[in-house]
Amino acid sequence: MKSRVQIYDTVLASVFVAMLLLAAFAVAPAAAQEVLPSWNDGAAKTRILDFVKATTTENGEGYVAPDDRIAVFDNDGTLWSEQPVYNQLAFVFDRIKALSPEHPEWKSKDPFKSVLSGNLAAVVQSGPKGLVDLLTVTHSGMTTDQFSKIVADWFATARHPKTGKPYDEMTYLPMRELLDYLRANGFKTFIVSGGGVEFMRPMTEKMYGIPPEQVVGSTITTEYAIVGDVPVLRRLPKLDFVDDGKGKPSGINKFIGRKPIFVAGNSDGDYEMLRWVTAAKGPRFAMIVHHTDADREVAYDRKSAVGKLDKALDEAERRNWLVVDMKSDWKKVFAFEK
Amino acid sequence: MKSRVQIYDTVLASVFVAMLLLAAFAVAPAAAQEVLPSWNDGAAKTRILDFVKATTTENGEGYVAPDDRIAVFDNDGTLWSEQPVYNQLAFVFDRIKALSPEHPEWKSKDPFKSVLSGNLAAVVQSGPKGLVDLLTVTHSGMTTDQFSKIVADWFATARHPKTGKPYDEMTYLPMRELLDYLRANGFKTFIVSGGGVEFMRPMTEKMYGIPPEQVVGSTITTEYAIVGDVPVLRRLPKLDFVDDGKGKPSGINKFIGRKPIFVAGNSDGDYEMLRWVTAAKGPRFAMIVHHTDADREVAYDRKSAVGKLDKALDEAERRNWLVVDMKSDWKKVFAFEK
Repeated sequence: MKSRVQIYDTVLASVFVAMLLLAAFAVAPAAAQEVLPSWNDGAAKTRILDFVKATTTENGEGYVAPDDRIAVFDNDGTLWSEQPVYNQLAFVFDRIKALSPEHPEWKSKDPFKSVLSGNLAAVVQSGPKGLVDLLTVTHSGMTTDQFSKIVADWFATARHPKTGKPYDEMTYLPMRELLDYLRANGFKTFIVSGGGVEFMRPMTEKMYGIPPEQVVGSTITTEYAIVGDVPVLRRLPKLDFVDDGKGKPSGINKFIGRKPIFVAGNSDGDYEMLRWVTAAKGPRFAMIVHHTDADREVAYDRKSAVGKLDKALDEAERRNWLVVDMKSDWKKVFAFEK
Repeated sequence: MKSRVQIYDTVLASVFVAMLLLAAFAVAPAAAQEVLPSWNDGAAKTRILDFVKATTTENGEGYVAPDDRIAVFDNDGTLWSEQPVYNQLAFVFDRIKALSPEHPEWKSKDPFKSVLSGNLAAVVQSGPKGLVDLLTVTHSGMTTDQFSKIVADWFATARHPKTGKPYDEMTYLPMRELLDYLRANGFKTFIVSGGGVEFMRPMTEKMYGIPPEQVVGSTITTEYAIVGDVPVLRRLPKLDFVDDGKGKPSGINKFIGRKPIFVAGNSDGDYEMLRWVTAAKGPRFAMIVHHTDADREVAYDRKSAVGKLDKALDEAERRNWLVVDMKSDWKKVFAFEK
């Protein structure tokens, strides 16, 4: 039989082991996990880390209270790929094809004709008007619930033409790590995209950990209606708000209602947002994702029909916006890379 | 000198005391604090507690994951007073008076004339068109930053005509407790009001613990502009979205992007929102604040020019919406009551 001392020794040892395990568990996630592992060490990563450290160091000069740590991200070309065409446009093309049997007139009418014949360059060249026509036809006439299902079904089956991957895997791993890192430091992350808000919302939680209510985008007008005693929202063929270019600051103001302290974009469509955010008083951080990697993704900027980056690139240095060079700053672009 | 056993006794006793203290601390906040203390015990309070218990009990039949615990609240007449006129209208009247020296023509032109002469009944009777005129004149022409300051300054100085209290104290204590209670149970609380979103946002965190990005309301069109190399948003004399009546489901869909499971309103302006939310599958809770207390507040419903409650009251029983009787269900209406 054990003595009382022996029993106490055993009990105390167990308590201490348990406490050590608890302590180890409490610090393990932070200690074991490298910050921004898919970013190469260098100026870009350092600037991001320095900003987060400054804004989260209590009593520091650049401290920002957690409630004000609003971070906004463009989506196309910033969080996920936008080449060869915006993913939402690939959705539109697929929907046009699926709906074409009901619309024989489309065979001789642009931009529908170009979509059906697979002439994507001609579609892109049809400009905003043509795109609006395509968006309206494919994005209206159904209820909001029906549209969400159409979107989710498309993501489940459609594949990216170059990589063959589902579109929800076409996200940039370093940017997802950046979202996680900011959230771990008390930032609230939002998408502010020119894309349709109801095209993004069914997928953003899974893709980025961003819930529907933190997605700002372009909107279509919806109308309350009773169908067989059931209230629904019908999507009307009428654009409500275009959250791009000069619209982005208005979108942030309307949906979020305060100025972000961190903003990320990749094209001239983000220029006004970058300007508006960084002109505000207090610490502000702006970054541009520069598509420089023709091997792992696509290299494009000033002359691209999709995601043109020209004016914002010129002004980045003058305004101290970080330009992230995908080729040299990122170890990996996509999670599925070997 | 103490024996090893005595030392162990002491150490172990300390460890156990510490563990007991920690355990007590962990449960103390819930145990010590009464739930919804300004609500009388009765059917209304019980129904609320039962719904929250059911939706938060894991593995229970009515369990709802925390991410989906979206709760939306009308503001005027639901979270704060709306009598004798909407608080935002009191703001409008004060602004019209402040701006009138620059507009001599208002002296002979309704609805401005009625405002300046203090004929509030005539102003209310001027209907939506007159109200829009007043809102446009007082809510546009400045930048968003300037407007926020005008609003904050007004709240700092204006007083309610009946109580003499600042408007940010005209909130219903039981409803603030309900907001706190829902948040403590993992709900995310939003305002969905017909009021102007930029009139509410400067105050909602302080009044209700609701941050600006969780305030849905009516919006005015804003325009990005550069003023002396500084980007600003100008508020244009153009209504963008009216978040009232049939607009409320659209507002929820646009700004939040998913269906709430808890909804509170007080007037027919909330009817479609109540209908749309409760028609969705899964557990849903709807409540109507019925203004029945002429002593502590104001008694009004079917015939009131402000906050008319008629159709929604008729349908409440049939649709199993909770009707809260302010007089009998609330111990206190305002925090400042003795």
